[in-house]
Amino acid sequence: MLKFYYGLGTCSLASHIALEDAGLDYTAERLDLKGNQQNSPDYLAINPKGRVPALVTDRGILTETPAILAFIAQIAPQADLAPLNDPFAFAEVQAFNSYVCSSMHVAHAHRMRGRRWATEESSLEDMRRKVPENVRAGFDLVENKLLRGPWVMGETYTICDPYLFTVADWAKGDSVDIADFPKVAEHHRRIQERAPVQKMLALYKA
Amino acid sequence: MLKFYYGLGTCSLASHIALEDAGLDYTAERLDLKGNQQNSPDYLAINPKGRVPALVTDRGILTETPAILAFIAQIAPQADLAPLNDPFAFAEVQAFNSYVCSSMHVAHAHRMRGRRWATEESSLEDMRRKVPENVRAGFDLVENKLLRGPWVMGETYTICDPYLFTVADWAKGDSVDIADFPKVAEHHRRIQERAPVQKMLALYKA
Repeated sequence: MLKFYYGLGTCSLASHIALEDAGLDYTAERLDLKGNQQNSPDYLAINPKGRVPALVTDRGILTETPAILAFIAQIAPQADLAPLNDPFAFAEVQAFNSYVCSSMHVAHAHRMRGRRWATEESSLEDMRRKVPENVRAGFDLVENKLLRGPWVMGETYTICDPYLFTVADWAKGDSVDIADFPKVAEHHRRIQERAPVQKMLALYKA
Repeated sequence: MLKFYYGLGTCSLASHIALEDAGLDYTAERLDLKGNQQNSPDYLAINPKGRVPALVTDRGILTETPAILAFIAQIAPQADLAPLNDPFAFAEVQAFNSYVCSSMHVAHAHRMRGRRWATEESSLEDMRRKVPENVRAGFDLVENKLLRGPWVMGETYTICDPYLFTVADWAKGDSVDIADFPKVAEHHRRIQERAPVQKMLALYKA
């Protein structure tokens, strides 16, 4: 049995949707991030990084969204969430998810999590001012180079799609209007028609 | 035939070593990063992100170190660079590489690439002051939680190892003494005994 630790407003949403897409049997526990539960001794024993998501399996604990997404695709091959038997196509999926993780998520994080990288209030304000520009640059690349449509990788829905949905859902808070990116906006609308996404939105936005 | 674009001092070193580890046939072209060749029209047509590494294959172009590393492991299974037939073990490899990419590399990047995230000189100085603390936190996690020894995943060398080597090689420039992390330091010494690493060090440090 899988156990998934998640937090509202976080990138755990991507893996959470993928767990539903995959039809896997799992339980989920929400961490109280405002109460700093992610840094409690109990949770640090599970994930010493003090972050979500974390996926507890019978073999051990996995962290990092791109790794969890690929794992879900691999253990539920019948759900066809990634091109598992085509190394090049799988690498394209991974490259997309790595870009979301290391560039788009990091750009977003400089709005609320600037203290990870600087100390002075003036620096944090400076970072926050630059967030919309960096978030826009990410969506610009997705819109014009990466998103094939209707799904990220083209005709087939993959583990890239809930991850793009997750960061696109942050855009408004980052003062970026997703409507400026028509393909991203259409992706965002379309994916919300899927039952797993509706279920998770009800959970994350309750 | 594969063609690999790389740059001195960059994370392309990790994939470059893995290409050698895998015994793959490839050509390599060094970009003149000081001359901003990564943002030339010719290169942006190859990688619109304006970054290295990029790997040109007969199917298309791949970017992002974690994706390229997994791709190399998958197309050269005889080199045994990742546990390709064990989704959990493969996910552990991917989780390590994702952490290096999105946390350790990002921590390092705030020293020289702070202008990605802020504008004022005072903010860039503030970021630079915090880099050693963040880089140390990354190696602390690797030392105490992630690095099994002698290789990252234990007895078997994987695509995690050249990536750890690459970021560990940056530590001194980030004012972090790798000797403070005995397992990381021993890993750094041991991996340099490997012929592919020696070959790449000669290329990157010539």
